[in-house]
Amino acid sequence: MKTQDYPAAVLELIAALKRMPGVGSRGAERLALWFLQQGRGEARRLAEALTRAADSVGYCPECGFFAESGARCTACSDAARDAGLLCVVEQATDVLPIERCGCYRGLYHCLGGRISPLDGVMPEDLSVERLLERVRAHPGCEVILALGSDVEGEATALYLAEQLAALPCRTTRLAQGMPAGAGPGHADAITLMRALEGRQRL
Amino acid sequence: MKTQDYPAAVLELIAALKRMPGVGSRGAERLALWFLQQGRGEARRLAEALTRAADSVGYCPECGFFAESGARCTACSDAARDAGLLCVVEQATDVLPIERCGCYRGLYHCLGGRISPLDGVMPEDLSVERLLERVRAHPGCEVILALGSDVEGEATALYLAEQLAALPCRTTRLAQGMPAGAGPGHADAITLMRALEGRQRL
Repeated sequence: MKTQDYPAAVLELIAALKRMPGVGSRGAERLALWFLQQGRGEARRLAEALTRAADSVGYCPECGFFAESGARCTACSDAARDAGLLCVVEQATDVLPIERCGCYRGLYHCLGGRISPLDGVMPEDLSVERLLERVRAHPGCEVILALGSDVEGEATALYLAEQLAALPCRTTRLAQGMPAGAGPGHADAITLMRALEGRQRL
Repeated sequence: MKTQDYPAAVLELIAALKRMPGVGSRGAERLALWFLQQGRGEARRLAEALTRAADSVGYCPECGFFAESGARCTACSDAARDAGLLCVVEQATDVLPIERCGCYRGLYHCLGGRISPLDGVMPEDLSVERLLERVRAHPGCEVILALGSDVEGEATALYLAEQLAALPCRTTRLAQGMPAGAGPGHADAITLMRALEGRQRL
């Protein structure tokens, strides 16, 4: 007697779903069965969205954010933006949180990571050369470093600041201090230390 | 100035991923970005698995479990199985847990749900007629009701028992009692009541 199992196509679907981050064996099985129970339309809808995204989404050749293949991103092709402001982020995924805060009107530059010798990521693996080119093309611009405030982010910011020092630009970084809505009781020691160091006159 | 957002294909992918159960806005965005960062192969792999499952997986015309389109399932096409045993479950997804316990060698029958007038599910919406046909085709068989032990499951079991009473079969149901590994301290009152009612001589 053969033990009953799902048809091969279902097992393959479970395996493909399980590759997604945060989805385990049980979750993948649950999702696959959900797709089967929804009828074919639901599976086709996601399959088409995945294929379309894989086919049509690439990176902006200017800043490295997501863009339609071969095209520049919305920001880089928007003449109303201030080309004298360049916000440097680690990943393309860091752009939208800054966009959504609604108070930044400049351009972006996605490094594609951060310097981390332990993970084998050196400056030449990041889009640093392209950043320097862009700065040289806009003398007098301001480069805002919006990198993580952990060790690798700090090291990357220091490295970039050194590289940018020789160029005709002003280099700044995001303010460090207390997050909105939090009192000293909720902040960790390093955040408090930085908030004290950077204290402002009222 | 236009606010930067993801390219349309990415927004569509996020929307399609968000339709999956248990996936919210943030989770869908995280998954979509993961697919983009994995390169095109990963998105294509899942798209193909979804398409293949949608195209090739159907239901066994005999028992209602998943099967390659137009074919019978592994169990129904397995001559080594005992056709005199018919295990009735609510959903196709209830079959594998029983298969995996490794001690059942009979066939299955998936009802496609359970009687629930509040949700508009009446006996004629379930594959009850097909069950009676199968029982008539195997006089002397045993029908094991493996339905949920909640109100709707119980009502469905009672209804089926009535329908089956006139047919040449024996109707049984899964034993109710203490789950493996649990002591009285961990069981709810109804489970304990049923375990006491069904107590067995040692």
